[in-house]
Amino acid sequence: MKKSPLEPFKKDLVEIERHLENCLGCEHPLVQEVSRYIVFSGGKRIRPVLTVACARLFGIENDDCYRLSVVPEYLHAASLLHDDVVDEGELRRGKLPAYKVWGNRITILSGDYLYARAIEIASSFGNAEIDAVIAKTVQKMSEGEIIQLVQSKDPELTLEVYYSIIERKTGALIAASAMIGGLFAGAPKALCKSLYVFGDLIGKAFQIVDDLLDYTGDENELGKGIGTDLKEGKVTVPLIYAFKMSDPQVREKIKKILSQENISDDEVNWVRSVILSTGALEASFNEAKGHIDNAIKELNKMPESETVGHLVNLSRYILERRR
Amino acid sequence: MKKSPLEPFKKDLVEIERHLENCLGCEHPLVQEVSRYIVFSGGKRIRPVLTVACARLFGIENDDCYRLSVVPEYLHAASLLHDDVVDEGELRRGKLPAYKVWGNRITILSGDYLYARAIEIASSFGNAEIDAVIAKTVQKMSEGEIIQLVQSKDPELTLEVYYSIIERKTGALIAASAMIGGLFAGAPKALCKSLYVFGDLIGKAFQIVDDLLDYTGDENELGKGIGTDLKEGKVTVPLIYAFKMSDPQVREKIKKILSQENISDDEVNWVRSVILSTGALEASFNEAKGHIDNAIKELNKMPESETVGHLVNLSRYILERRR
Repeated sequence: MKKSPLEPFKKDLVEIERHLENCLGCEHPLVQEVSRYIVFSGGKRIRPVLTVACARLFGIENDDCYRLSVVPEYLHAASLLHDDVVDEGELRRGKLPAYKVWGNRITILSGDYLYARAIEIASSFGNAEIDAVIAKTVQKMSEGEIIQLVQSKDPELTLEVYYSIIERKTGALIAASAMIGGLFAGAPKALCKSLYVFGDLIGKAFQIVDDLLDYTGDENELGKGIGTDLKEGKVTVPLIYAFKMSDPQVREKIKKILSQENISDDEVNWVRSVILSTGALEASFNEAKGHIDNAIKELNKMPESETVGHLVNLSRYILERRR
Repeated sequence: MKKSPLEPFKKDLVEIERHLENCLGCEHPLVQEVSRYIVFSGGKRIRPVLTVACARLFGIENDDCYRLSVVPEYLHAASLLHDDVVDEGELRRGKLPAYKVWGNRITILSGDYLYARAIEIASSFGNAEIDAVIAKTVQKMSEGEIIQLVQSKDPELTLEVYYSIIERKTGALIAASAMIGGLFAGAPKALCKSLYVFGDLIGKAFQIVDDLLDYTGDENELGKGIGTDLKEGKVTVPLIYAFKMSDPQVREKIKKILSQENISDDEVNWVRSVILSTGALEASFNEAKGHIDNAIKELNKMPESETVGHLVNLSRYILERRR
């Protein structure tokens, strides 16, 4: 069996879990319960690993790095809570989404709490640059969600608009995860920027692979149904390419399906077959691969170390993941 | 007609409105629309006025003060958006709440956006102390909402629990509004703390008067119905006192009413009559007055100036307001 790219970060992951547990803050049992439900629901901890690894690139490795690394993970968890309410998702990592367990009210407020908690922890380092990156990131995440909601169901969505959404929804937080590690370690400004670009690029690739898996993944491995994006009216890279690469008749049918209130499994399967037959799958994958190649170029600007190699492997793995 | 206590801040209010308009940020039309709907829905701008006035206490008065002053107002607006979704409110300042106009999804995300925008503006000053106060405040606000939601419908709620809620829900943000003015102006630490205590105290008084108006106010002046808190199962100061000051039979009836899913207008009127006849009204008012007296003591620690007098008047006015 192939070694997990997270293997070199095994010890870090133990510390990250411990800090995710200890930094939750509020002693209120319900807030704790909902927060824990979403924070400990099987996330891969890519974001905190990036923070810790990027600080290590510049020789910094201590308890505070781990404490800082919970910031992007809590922000991620907070956004999942609000996303689920907004998207009315059915399953999240194979479990019922929080709003189905506690209702919308508690879920919205617990999301607010996790956002606030993350910002509070970030501010505890007294580093205004870190505060600014985190603040900007939270703003971008909310913009991305809104733009996606409004743009949804538009099959003529261009790649440009798609990127403007995922850069905000996914890229910004992964970029920030990497950059705050560098900022915390006092890395030179230019390299902090490179870490941001690196994170943004792997974030984009990560999202595209996510979009692909939504059409081609295994339901059991994914922990959620296939075609969820399409059913929610979300137009993603494979669909954009499929639409571009199809003849007018097929385009019309795609448009018609997207305009429906409910999309059946048969229709999902048909769209999937279009994505497979037009070559949209390969085009999307190549798009993701291009981002990873560029991300690795940024990593190669960093001071030489084992950690650079581990981050390169982690980046490449994004293209291989199945869930 | 009595002069408004905001009269001395007339010029400030013009600048505050201008900055509230200009700082919204996101160029997305829908985000703009929802944000503007809530930000410009007739708020009294107490929070930004406090920020500007508290900076002025220490000789600082410039465009940046106004820009900083939008932070608490945006946070306030964000919390109103989420509160309305959570509380399923019917009217907000005489208008339909945002969730009834745009639905829950857009409203939740616009609230997220305004929170984020506020934090982003705060962080733009590069002052880690300001960042920390704002972060702590947002965390407290979300805790307060959750605790209130869970504690609701408990008629034996003690004053202590009540205060632990409103200190988070209302006090913290008003306290922060005052303190960040002082921090921005480079005021001595001890006086910044006094500004925080001052804000916390007037915040508590403000909330108690709000609670009283919910039972005794004029529906037209208030822009919302009477007894809304009771109907939402919120136990506030007048009800806590009324419960304390009543005999066992009346207590039982109060408990019964609170336990119901729906509370009728007749039942609201009955509870109101209990509040009036037991003296709970006066007891609540005296509670608020005590906070204002203590708040003014904190103000009197500030360097002497006209602005101190204006803030004293503003504090006293809280006890007189009718909406």
